[in-house]
Amino acid sequence: MIVSIETVRAALEAALRGAGVGRENAALQASLLIEAEMRGLASHGLLRLPRIVERIRNGVCAPHAEGAHRWRASHLLDVDGQHGLGPVVAMRALDAVCERAAQGGVAVACIRNNNHLGMLAWYAQTVAERGYTLVALSTSEALVHPWGGRRAMLGTNPIAIGVPVGFDADADADADADADADADADADADMNGGANSRVAPRALVMDMATSLVAMGKIHDYANRGEPLEAGWALDAAGEPTLDAQAAKHGSIAPFGGAKGYALGLAFEVLVTALTGGAIGTEITGTLDSHTACNKGDVFIVIAPQREAALHARIAAYLDAVRECEPADARRPVSVPGDRSAASRAHALAHGLNVDARLWHTLETLAAAQGVA
Amino acid sequence: MIVSIETVRAALEAALRGAGVGRENAALQASLLIEAEMRGLASHGLLRLPRIVERIRNGVCAPHAEGAHRWRASHLLDVDGQHGLGPVVAMRALDAVCERAAQGGVAVACIRNNNHLGMLAWYAQTVAERGYTLVALSTSEALVHPWGGRRAMLGTNPIAIGVPVGFDADADADADADADADADADADADMNGGANSRVAPRALVMDMATSLVAMGKIHDYANRGEPLEAGWALDAAGEPTLDAQAAKHGSIAPFGGAKGYALGLAFEVLVTALTGGAIGTEITGTLDSHTACNKGDVFIVIAPQREAALHARIAAYLDAVRECEPADARRPVSVPGDRSAASRAHALAHGLNVDARLWHTLETLAAAQGVA
Repeated sequence: MIVSIETVRAALEAALRGAGVGRENAALQASLLIEAEMRGLASHGLLRLPRIVERIRNGVCAPHAEGAHRWRASHLLDVDGQHGLGPVVAMRALDAVCERAAQGGVAVACIRNNNHLGMLAWYAQTVAERGYTLVALSTSEALVHPWGGRRAMLGTNPIAIGVPVGFDADADADADADADADADADADADMNGGANSRVAPRALVMDMATSLVAMGKIHDYANRGEPLEAGWALDAAGEPTLDAQAAKHGSIAPFGGAKGYALGLAFEVLVTALTGGAIGTEITGTLDSHTACNKGDVFIVIAPQREAALHARIAAYLDAVRECEPADARRPVSVPGDRSAASRAHALAHGLNVDARLWHTLETLAAAQGVA
Repeated sequence: MIVSIETVRAALEAALRGAGVGRENAALQASLLIEAEMRGLASHGLLRLPRIVERIRNGVCAPHAEGAHRWRASHLLDVDGQHGLGPVVAMRALDAVCERAAQGGVAVACIRNNNHLGMLAWYAQTVAERGYTLVALSTSEALVHPWGGRRAMLGTNPIAIGVPVGFDADADADADADADADADADADADMNGGANSRVAPRALVMDMATSLVAMGKIHDYANRGEPLEAGWALDAAGEPTLDAQAAKHGSIAPFGGAKGYALGLAFEVLVTALTGGAIGTEITGTLDSHTACNKGDVFIVIAPQREAALHARIAAYLDAVRECEPADARRPVSVPGDRSAASRAHALAHGLNVDARLWHTLETLAAAQGVA
């Protein structure tokens, strides 16, 4: 069913407020879930809300915690997340490191004891819109097998990168830029979320897990009784399987074979070394409703160059990539973020298509607990 | 033919000294090439030396330049490489940012106008041995096609990550660590280069291009007249090809499909945005002997936590990954860097196996130009 974004927002905020979350933080958590849903990443969207409320009820998510900050050095921030809401702790940390990066050019936040961050693209977009470059890394419970191994020992360990590629205050500023390319205003708008009335700074946003598929996708296939594709997953005994039910108790493959495994493992070690969080099979609390979350998150924020000519060169390059002759004429080449931006623009214009049962659950949570 | 490492080192240094490189910088450049050769990365090893000498002769590599440093902010360093030798400019930049990271917890170097860095693992290993975490990114001439596109628009855009996982002054320090795992001293030694008499701090080092294969591999196959594997490359017209000769004039695939493409593109944009270097098909001078090199390099150096218990936990995790039951009993699971460390240990013990024609070229360069 189609629900307007404002109706969804009101329901999510009411449910969170009823669970004891303050107004501002409820809005932050709701925004993250709605952004994920709008971008077509339903696995990180509205369906997460019931679990978040359960985690608060079960005492493994502290609704008021925003994280305790301690500067280990002038540009390196340690954050004890105090088991707060993932995006609340993360945004407070990002506020602090963006301010420090504005002074010193770079700052890093190392977060532990924080709940699930949700869609990393949201942080990359937000930070890029403030004019900073972000590299975000996080870990998760072990779901991915080493390349050539039989059981889950790595998290899905996502990386997101956000790079501002323009600081124009309005869409017409393109005309001022020293661009030698035929910058396509529509493509730029699409890249930034299209129908949004506020013209955001242009940004390249890339967000990907280092697993071949998401565990959420395995669960989807299991729910629909569909077979997996070969190479996606192993069963609990470590044998390749196309049975999604069996894969739920097994492990999923890293993307890109040995290279993707190497990357995911390096992220696992880097995040643990910087945050002091748990590692590998010791990580808990990223999937269930009752276990404290002990993984780590790392945000590297860098102040980029601000020359308009440079940003015009990068924007022209991205347009040239989009215009690269496609292997299949029906499938034009896209740049990371293009498809989610188109999905977001559609949602802004037409509302969200929400599963009826999920919507009923959300409405019930909002009505039972709502104070709005 | 087998040549001792010291004989190789003397020849490389003589050739570089003869081309006008100072003693210390010749040793640095030679060390990088020898390390690559020892680790089994011949494409980044001794065969690069003749091209480096040619580039100096042709005036596109300045033998004395070490890079001009300008701190854009207190922890963000801009380096104009002045077209110096890649590793010379890079190590001077790393010296500066490591010192700043020691104070502020993190520092970043943004390098442009620098020659080819060579094997990134060397920088990651060196920085990790100093006790810092490194994330290194670089770009190259466009060789990789966008996912679903027909022509080369991205560099091979490698990433290297180095993480210290122990600060012991000697191998026995393991016994002091608060490890609850059966740390395997042999495995640790192997990971650090085995037979090296100096016991280096343990480190995880990961180094990979975001292309599916290296262009050097395509050239190898072309030289040997062997067909490529399906999916590796496109010809100049953008059609899939197994013909290595045709692929030399075409493009190579990103690793990991759409995800690897997204990652490589994000690196291309991130490096360009931070360094102001060239982007995409505008990048020159990473492959030939006569064109100035205009790509960018980025080094992010972070001071990690130094708790022994944390490092013991990470080391135990890496050992557990190595002991993960393998899919194929003959191929145990390895951790990034294991195989190159074994190759390095073998080379240290037995010398290098150098192609006879290449060795003749190197000896000729050393004799003709040598001052040693």
